[in-house]
Amino acid sequence: MTTTVGAPTTYDLGPARALSCRECGHQIPLAPEFACAECFGPLEVAYSFGRIRRADIEAGPKSIWRYRDLLPVPSDVDSHPNTQPGLTRLVKADRLAAALGVKSLWVKDDTGNPTHSFKDRVVAVALAAARQLGFRVLACPSTGNLANATAAAAARAGWESVVLIPSSLERAKILTTAVYDGALIAVEGNYDDVNRLATELAAEHEDWAFVNVNVRPYYAEGSKTLAYEIAEQLGWRVPDQVVVPIASGAQLTKVDKGFRELGELGLVEQTPYRVFGAQATGCSPVSAAYKAGHDVVQPVRPDTIARSLAIGAPADGPYVLDVVNRTKGAIEDVSDEEVVEGIRLLARTEGIFTETAGGVTVATAKKLIETGKLDPEAETVLLITGDGLKTLDAIENHVGPRATVPPTTAAVHKALGF
Amino acid sequence: MTTTVGAPTTYDLGPARALSCRECGHQIPLAPEFACAECFGPLEVAYSFGRIRRADIEAGPKSIWRYRDLLPVPSDVDSHPNTQPGLTRLVKADRLAAALGVKSLWVKDDTGNPTHSFKDRVVAVALAAARQLGFRVLACPSTGNLANATAAAAARAGWESVVLIPSSLERAKILTTAVYDGALIAVEGNYDDVNRLATELAAEHEDWAFVNVNVRPYYAEGSKTLAYEIAEQLGWRVPDQVVVPIASGAQLTKVDKGFRELGELGLVEQTPYRVFGAQATGCSPVSAAYKAGHDVVQPVRPDTIARSLAIGAPADGPYVLDVVNRTKGAIEDVSDEEVVEGIRLLARTEGIFTETAGGVTVATAKKLIETGKLDPEAETVLLITGDGLKTLDAIENHVGPRATVPPTTAAVHKALGF
Repeated sequence: MTTTVGAPTTYDLGPARALSCRECGHQIPLAPEFACAECFGPLEVAYSFGRIRRADIEAGPKSIWRYRDLLPVPSDVDSHPNTQPGLTRLVKADRLAAALGVKSLWVKDDTGNPTHSFKDRVVAVALAAARQLGFRVLACPSTGNLANATAAAAARAGWESVVLIPSSLERAKILTTAVYDGALIAVEGNYDDVNRLATELAAEHEDWAFVNVNVRPYYAEGSKTLAYEIAEQLGWRVPDQVVVPIASGAQLTKVDKGFRELGELGLVEQTPYRVFGAQATGCSPVSAAYKAGHDVVQPVRPDTIARSLAIGAPADGPYVLDVVNRTKGAIEDVSDEEVVEGIRLLARTEGIFTETAGGVTVATAKKLIETGKLDPEAETVLLITGDGLKTLDAIENHVGPRATVPPTTAAVHKALGF
Repeated sequence: MTTTVGAPTTYDLGPARALSCRECGHQIPLAPEFACAECFGPLEVAYSFGRIRRADIEAGPKSIWRYRDLLPVPSDVDSHPNTQPGLTRLVKADRLAAALGVKSLWVKDDTGNPTHSFKDRVVAVALAAARQLGFRVLACPSTGNLANATAAAAARAGWESVVLIPSSLERAKILTTAVYDGALIAVEGNYDDVNRLATELAAEHEDWAFVNVNVRPYYAEGSKTLAYEIAEQLGWRVPDQVVVPIASGAQLTKVDKGFRELGELGLVEQTPYRVFGAQATGCSPVSAAYKAGHDVVQPVRPDTIARSLAIGAPADGPYVLDVVNRTKGAIEDVSDEEVVEGIRLLARTEGIFTETAGGVTVATAKKLIETGKLDPEAETVLLITGDGLKTLDAIENHVGPRATVPPTTAAVHKALGF
């Protein structure tokens, strides 16, 4: 993680020094690359951190850029127009804790980001790195949150954007991306078709940064900021337990990476922590592998309402298993009915309305507690990564008015059971 | 504003000392009252502020509670579970500035609040005051943002809530309130019927705090925090010009009150500022009164897509006229087409997706600049008070994918005009 390569880099990406293959360890200089030339394994950013002090971070911008010295971005990153994501609320969730029967519980509420999901974090880092790497267009294949975040970040920066979506995408998700007025292209096909098309286009267009394809090593680092913020907001302390939803699995591995870096840099005490993974049963390849004791992940065809987690062949699946096993966590999955109940439980206890992914996290935490895997006496943080306004269809048949009444006080009293 | 009454109060509401009639000046001790017993005029909170220092505010909570010594709330307000609204981004909007032809422009982006509108501010203050005043149920009549904010704040605090909505309300707005699991009652009638019913219920239930009815004097003070934040975020400085949307008009008058208080307390230099008001032409009674030079406001029947501003008989209309005339601002109104273009302009230049009320503000600013009423050389702040995800229907027929194509690079290139 803090490995240095000898050759000087030509790009100013702050403390980033090289790209390192997660499979074979082969290193290359910083470049717009994402796969190892030796073994085709995924590349990851390697750093050489200077001395980093809590006080400098605390005096920094009120966004993820307070952690710029821990990210692959130049030190003047915040002088370019960007969406300034992050520093979202860490909410002490006493009422949810009581409902779940745990002692100390926090919710990291990433619905407060500019486009209301954690994707603003990773896209902001991708854009900053892409600028340094010489790209001029911000692009992505997406089915929702990433499309919103990419189109918004490009608009704010004055970049062109190309966002590819399956043409079957719900109208609401199309509108919330199209409004930013980039090149939104609906593709006749499923998400796999769209993803394949993105890879082909990335190969043809040297100046198009597909955030989750050809600049993925930089993009993924943005999720480390969730760990940094949680630790800083707890008073520079790593929680005992954290529950993270799994889509590609990148977020979970980066939260772990963030906690480790803070410990190695002396910014927090190196206390043990356990990382738990959450999936919807309708797309639970990593949970299945974990339960079977495998170290590879068998792809599945997703069938769940938790669409933002519905990646059937999660790229970071094996690394997720490594993290969870190393930290003595666990992975669990929950039914779509439990997801809806998770959304409703968080809303009625804490006033936080999450999208389906957050419902997965809450419901999985509940199941992990009930099965004794998550310690109810230890301090726990749940990652709520996106907003309920984006997945209204999930609750549509489950909530509504208590009653419809004529405009009289007597009718209201009757409806309330007085 | 800093008037003191002699009698000791029985409620701990921080620096608040009395309720003062805005019409006749009659004062009463702090109480759960909203109308003057002498003249039926609206009551407003009067304060006796102690010494307030910038450093104390800056060291305070990262929410509106950093300004607790300027609000009618007890000093331990943040020790009770609450949604912790505020401290939303003040965004330097250079690309929007260029599009509008102004020199220095900022957007106060209140979409980042917990339920994504400024209503979280006023509801949080109402809840804190209601707790002190002995209420036990949080209630409101509403057609949208206020319903969300009230239901969420009550859920977080563990209070019962009663939210009254017109039964014709759009399904999405019903869902985003119902999910918090309070008593949501759909009323057969229009908003006027719902409002009347709320007043009747408030009279019957001594422990029900209808935030915008019987605790309105406290509730309305929450909007002062917009002014405090803008000034602090500008480096303790009041901007030359501010554009505020007008619904009841309370927000505009409280932004002015906030700026004045900061000046009187020596927290900012007492520089002149101009307050501009924005309405949709389909509900523009205050704009009409301003243009006609009247000091009273003639009620209208609203007909606009900007529903969160659609109050035909705005309670604070005359006070808005006072503020705008005193500060040498202006009021303007814009068509629904201009509102949609305002939403799109903000989205494509700054990556911020606002609801229709924000479209009104942007479009009005544009019109005020074009007509020479807003000085393009002076620093200007636009108040964006709610999120575009809440009013998707407004843009539904205006934005969409550039093209729908088969999954080939050639098809994408053709769609992009290569």
